[in-house]
Amino acid sequence: VSVMVGVDIGGTKVALGLVGEDGSLHGDAREDVTLTGGDAVFVEGLIGSVRRAVAESREEVLGIGLGCAGTIDSARGTVIESPNLPVRDLPLATLVRDAIGLPVVLDNDANAAVWAEVQAGAARGLRHVVMLTLGTGVGGGLVLDGRLFRGAAGGAGELGHMVVMAGGEVCACGRRGCLEAYASGTALQRTAERIADAVGRGLVEEGKGTDYGRGLLRLHRQDRLSGESVGALALEGDAAAGNAVFEVSRWLGVGLANLANVFNPEMIVVGGGLSRLGDLLLEPAREILRRTALHPSGDAQVAIAELRNAAGVVGAGLVAWEEHRSVARVGRP
Amino acid sequence: VSVMVGVDIGGTKVALGLVGEDGSLHGDAREDVTLTGGDAVFVEGLIGSVRRAVAESREEVLGIGLGCAGTIDSARGTVIESPNLPVRDLPLATLVRDAIGLPVVLDNDANAAVWAEVQAGAARGLRHVVMLTLGTGVGGGLVLDGRLFRGAAGGAGELGHMVVMAGGEVCACGRRGCLEAYASGTALQRTAERIADAVGRGLVEEGKGTDYGRGLLRLHRQDRLSGESVGALALEGDAAAGNAVFEVSRWLGVGLANLANVFNPEMIVVGGGLSRLGDLLLEPAREILRRTALHPSGDAQVAIAELRNAAGVVGAGLVAWEEHRSVARVGRP
Repeated sequence: VSVMVGVDIGGTKVALGLVGEDGSLHGDAREDVTLTGGDAVFVEGLIGSVRRAVAESREEVLGIGLGCAGTIDSARGTVIESPNLPVRDLPLATLVRDAIGLPVVLDNDANAAVWAEVQAGAARGLRHVVMLTLGTGVGGGLVLDGRLFRGAAGGAGELGHMVVMAGGEVCACGRRGCLEAYASGTALQRTAERIADAVGRGLVEEGKGTDYGRGLLRLHRQDRLSGESVGALALEGDAAAGNAVFEVSRWLGVGLANLANVFNPEMIVVGGGLSRLGDLLLEPAREILRRTALHPSGDAQVAIAELRNAAGVVGAGLVAWEEHRSVARVGRP
Repeated sequence: VSVMVGVDIGGTKVALGLVGEDGSLHGDAREDVTLTGGDAVFVEGLIGSVRRAVAESREEVLGIGLGCAGTIDSARGTVIESPNLPVRDLPLATLVRDAIGLPVVLDNDANAAVWAEVQAGAARGLRHVVMLTLGTGVGGGLVLDGRLFRGAAGGAGELGHMVVMAGGEVCACGRRGCLEAYASGTALQRTAERIADAVGRGLVEEGKGTDYGRGLLRLHRQDRLSGESVGALALEGDAAAGNAVFEVSRWLGVGLANLANVFNPEMIVVGGGLSRLGDLLLEPAREILRRTALHPSGDAQVAIAELRNAAGVVGAGLVAWEEHRSVARVGRP
């Protein structure tokens, strides 16, 4: 069989794996720590990792797919800017192709993720799919009419920076009121902090019981309140943590309804760290979608992403596979 | 030469014209009053109008394009629901085709409008174009990767029903905080009413001069305050009317930035009645787009629609032309 090398370029680590056309991983994905310290060192380390993966592969390697956070010009293979990397306008695809001698595709990590879900995950076989990745921030990927949609210059799909509450909470992007400021791990933490503060000051609503919010308050005093810890507490059944998740979920629902009205997708896939909350996160959001989006867009399915840890590697590999097929199609007489 | 009959189905009138492949009108577009009173009467009237247009044409008529407000399933040729028509789930394309004996395409009026701008208007030759139609309400149309984008079931492009201010002003759709509730003719009227009320109660800010808001107040007392009358006053240089336009324009800017972040389009085209305000409407909105959208999406051009009165007829005709070419492409061996 043949494979692609899928490469998930994170902030401090690069994960690689050999990806079959069906999205299967051949062998384990592995992580290589990449040195930071400027373009040249980063690119050198990355090329070394890819070269090893190609050399050690027992399958025929047809090409390389690179997935990277940030603004990517996929058509030119350039990292325009990335929150994780000390680079700007870096022609990464060309650099790797020239070093390795195989075709290279570079794309946004969110595009890789949604493509993986459409090819081998929750949205298998669907043609109109929107993906939201809810982590510290909110990422977005779009598959429209069966194809990855990147916009005029690779900037499409910044779904977390749709304003849903003009003048509202401050977002990491510097604006106020973005979806990301309301439906992310950061937002869950902030919401839980507010509850913990109220509990600490004795402002618990009557009838909520004396234990209400004690778990959040404890975490807060230990400086351990985070989207992840609040989510874990909510999954254990803690009422106050559950309320924090509920609030985030309702904002997520506002975002889902907006996306449904804009795209009329068959499915919206929710991935990222917050998606571990499953239906605890999705149910209130689905209800807002159903109740507020216009007909027929409110019928969109909402599902948790299926590809978990290796999603970045598999997605990057599958984007390379799609490019390979597309070149073959165009190349035929 | 050959033509398509372009048909713009409005609330009480049907406008028709013969449309060349370049978007030219052959002869005048004309309006036929269509009786309302249920499906059958409406369809009969429509078919009569189309039949006359075909019979009177001196050019070869290749097909018929129907543009209609509402939720349209273009793939099936069905009007799912329309604010203008007393119909539901009406297979209009089939009914007209069977009666006339020519191919019929049915699409949303907003899709027809954006297609017309891309083929023969402000966005000629561009591949990624978002259109906002600002009238009493806000409509939307999308051309992505050079093709009309309709979503899974024809519901895409409801750009006016993107929530930008959760819990905000009531929208005609029944929800709160939609873009339509802030950046439409209705919103301009409401904003002007608020100013007129304040002026009437003597609450004018100091330093604004004794004439400030008198024009709006006069219109208000005559019950003639509307998006159109406020816009006309603003174009004459009235400061209070200009401020009302400015407020609507800034909300429009929030919408433009959202759309830029989501689609990274080359251009956003603004049409509809409010677009007669030209740069008075666009400039403050552009500034918000430039200042708040992410790179590179904030670079999107913002332009006023070029096709005016006949846009609906021309757009419907051009959608029929595109379908004609697409059938020819697929049909070739």
